[in-house]
Amino acid sequence: MTESTNPDVALIIGGGPGISSSCARLFARNGMAVGVAARNPDKPVLQDLEHTHGVRRYACDASEPAAVELLFANVVRDLGNPTLVVHNIDGRVPGIFGKKITEADACMAFDTLRNSAFSAFLVGQQAARVMSENQPNANGAKGTIIFTNASAALKGFPLSGAFAMACHAKAGLAQSMARELMPQGIHVANVPIDAAIGWTRDDGTRAHRRAGTAVDDNMADPDHIAETYLQLHRQHRSTWAFEVVLRPWVEKW
Amino acid sequence: MTESTNPDVALIIGGGPGISSSCARLFARNGMAVGVAARNPDKPVLQDLEHTHGVRRYACDASEPAAVELLFANVVRDLGNPTLVVHNIDGRVPGIFGKKITEADACMAFDTLRNSAFSAFLVGQQAARVMSENQPNANGAKGTIIFTNASAALKGFPLSGAFAMACHAKAGLAQSMARELMPQGIHVANVPIDAAIGWTRDDGTRAHRRAGTAVDDNMADPDHIAETYLQLHRQHRSTWAFEVVLRPWVEKW
Amino acid sequence: MTESTNPDVALIIGGGPGISSSCARLFARNGMAVGVAARNPDKPVLQDLEHTHGVRRYACDASEPAAVELLFANVVRDLGNPTLVVHNIDGRVPGIFGKKITEADACMAFDTLRNSAFSAFLVGQQAARVMSENQPNANGAKGTIIFTNASAALKGFPLSGAFAMACHAKAGLAQSMARELMPQGIHVANVPIDAAIGWTRDDGTRAHRRAGTAVDDNMADPDHIAETYLQLHRQHRSTWAFEVVLRPWVEKW
Amino acid sequence: MTESTNPDVALIIGGGPGISSSCARLFARNGMAVGVAARNPDKPVLQDLEHTHGVRRYACDASEPAAVELLFANVVRDLGNPTLVVHNIDGRVPGIFGKKITEADACMAFDTLRNSAFSAFLVGQQAARVMSENQPNANGAKGTIIFTNASAALKGFPLSGAFAMACHAKAGLAQSMARELMPQGIHVANVPIDAAIGWTRDDGTRAHRRAGTAVDDNMADPDHIAETYLQLHRQHRSTWAFEVVLRPWVEKW
Repeated sequence: MTESTNPDVALIIGGGPGISSSCARLFARNGMAVGVAARNPDKPVLQDLEHTHGVRRYACDASEPAAVELLFANVVRDLGNPTLVVHNIDGRVPGIFGKKITEADACMAFDTLRNSAFSAFLVGQQAARVMSENQPNANGAKGTIIFTNASAALKGFPLSGAFAMACHAKAGLAQSMARELMPQGIHVANVPIDAAIGWTRDDGTRAHRRAGTAVDDNMADPDHIAETYLQLHRQHRSTWAFEVVLRPWVEKW
Repeated sequence: MTESTNPDVALIIGGGPGISSSCARLFARNGMAVGVAARNPDKPVLQDLEHTHGVRRYACDASEPAAVELLFANVVRDLGNPTLVVHNIDGRVPGIFGKKITEADACMAFDTLRNSAFSAFLVGQQAARVMSENQPNANGAKGTIIFTNASAALKGFPLSGAFAMACHAKAGLAQSMARELMPQGIHVANVPIDAAIGWTRDDGTRAHRRAGTAVDDNMADPDHIAETYLQLHRQHRSTWAFEVVLRPWVEKW
Repeated sequence: MTESTNPDVALIIGGGPGISSSCARLFARNGMAVGVAARNPDKPVLQDLEHTHGVRRYACDASEPAAVELLFANVVRDLGNPTLVVHNIDGRVPGIFGKKITEADACMAFDTLRNSAFSAFLVGQQAARVMSENQPNANGAKGTIIFTNASAALKGFPLSGAFAMACHAKAGLAQSMARELMPQGIHVANVPIDAAIGWTRDDGTRAHRRAGTAVDDNMADPDHIAETYLQLHRQHRSTWAFEVVLRPWVEKW
Repeated sequence: MTESTNPDVALIIGGGPGISSSCARLFARNGMAVGVAARNPDKPVLQDLEHTHGVRRYACDASEPAAVELLFANVVRDLGNPTLVVHNIDGRVPGIFGKKITEADACMAFDTLRNSAFSAFLVGQQAARVMSENQPNANGAKGTIIFTNASAALKGFPLSGAFAMACHAKAGLAQSMARELMPQGIHVANVPIDAAIGWTRDDGTRAHRRAGTAVDDNMADPDHIAETYLQLHRQHRSTWAFEVVLRPWVEKW
């Protein structure tokens, strides 16, 4: 096979200060051209990423088919064909947790499905389209598609039926895409984070201890999540992992 | 506890000639008042059920919040509070199987999610609302909510990402509702049918052999699926099953 | 196919006052010839079953290959070829729960594997041998093999590594046997009971409330477990269930 | 916390030319002191590892409690307290695949359970004992215990009931140990390899193409499996993975 000699192009969907930012920094430090798409690409955390790591910002409502198609066209034009796409939207909205099924708002349930699962479908579809034109790299891969997920993908917890639906849907999609695309050289992974996720302190370091607890590292550190994503992207196609559940050492499961 | 002495009221969402019809007949034969809701309640198979088994027919687009709310209000008015609700819509549409993810229609994916998973949310929510007012029966149950599902709930197959999403979503919802509602006396079950499902011959008997095969009973017989649903409904609350996968003896899995 | 007209013959391996006794009574009341095998067949509970329900008692160490072979030969001679075999030994021994892995006794771990998983292999093997000679019954089945299991088959809990091994092993065996034997007309089922199990009061009624709790039915009632086993045995081969997890309504999972 | 400054000590149980050798080479190249234990430590592949990578060889029947205890004592004496232990024995013996359950040899089933699952218990127990005395390293870990497993841990295939038992047992043990030991700072992982595994050519390079197939990389390359093990060992405790299934891109699952 003729290997690709082009540099890696990473596209991250979802632009929060947690996993998306950690991925953007790590991928940029490893020589990738990096784009981040968010509904509001002008928020300070993304502007910072542009200044410090040369990350390109894109406005995109990932639950709109035309918007996702346009996003990929723009990224291909600006950075080249993506080789690594991370879908980082879980669609949680205020009130999605802790509401009884009898009292849950139907619109909220619908929006969660659309923002999380349907956007994953749209992003996964466009990623598959552009990656299928890539040449395999040294590890035999045309590209990597990673879906960030939550423990609700593994277990439907009470008082959060809508979130369980959305996370399960995303996991089902990822599994179907993995069975379909891996034999075509595209690596698909589902990564449920079974934990609360840490955040960035003002000095730029990561915090990952729950408030009021004595034990350290009891939240998932997004910098370390990003490391696992990079390792998934670099796995040789003779030994691909589809699902990796990440949780802190003290997490109950 | 004061046991309910009211008769069982069953409501079946989805009105096809397979599982819905088998359930309607079996439930009616066992003394339940039975309602069936379908987008088109006037199709011959449902008219037959009315004539032969006294089944009440309701028009309902189960993916519309207001329509589902109205349906339950009408059933409560006509038949009394449901004690058994079966959600029998899998949302499969022409073209959902066999399409590459790169070529799948986004609208179809969206409609599948809405028709299958979101309607399950709406139906499950209304069922939980009415059942929570029931008195426990002799087995300690206020009611039973059954979600018919497919093997795509267990495994995301290639070339059908949208269906995998919808079936997984429904399974996640069912699991969340089970954890929430079972301790309140409402039995929730997810029943993936891991097989093609048989049909009714003109003489009324069920056929369940795949065309061109020599082995008998290699499709799931909906009359026997209905029996399992009735058994689930009659389980004592000291030993409830949440998930039962049904498949023919010769099915590969 | 020529259907069998012979009566059902049930063999229960393990002779405690819980599931085994409930099964023996229920199967006998439903017209089956019933045998129970235990290391000590002379304990009062089994003598009672003989007097009240005509149950035949057999001495057998089910972890000994020759003993299991002899058991089946004797049952075939006395009652005829079994059509329903229930393996009801979980091998738990004093001290298997609550011990740290660093302090667990290796011999105890070894004995648990042998008493639970290896005996399941021996019993399953003999059951498959005798059932393969049966004629299919009206439901198309040559016989049913049921493995009673525990929640440790679903989840490896801390401080009980040896029990997790044994229960997982039994589940793996059951799954392999199901895939192999179901296409031959032998129904194989794994039934994890995700709960503490109730017991018999002196007056013969079943108790299933945890000591000191106000809620009723918060333990699994073995009489109702036995009902599920009978239903599994009577399922039509067009819709066989392999795994059914039973848990009380208030159980956390 | 006071971090350990001692070098890593790796102990690999099982001494074949596949995963064990790849691990030994990779760990040694990364500065670890490496020991390999096998029934026959004098086979050429292990002698080679000693000469080329300074790997220390140990004779050990890992299914014997006293032998495993002695092994760890010797390794601690020679190399120091292990910080990484890999259990690499799957216990497959000639004839374990392809035999009907009715014809399988009971002794072979018993030996498989003992060689695979029981040895995993013994090794896991000793590893936990020695690691609990370690100081946490920079990632917060006292050590890593990895169980190599097979696809039979995920799915019980027909005609291999004994192997399904052993692999499931090992998975159950790993899960129990993970829940128990991870909160104590010991990382436990179960790694089912869902594929045939490649081998070493005479020139030292790895081959991983099935005989007679045109597609490359359709077997799992043990060098890449070893990379995943090293990454697991280096994960920060805020984001530990318990289970990673590795399979080649073209593998059906």
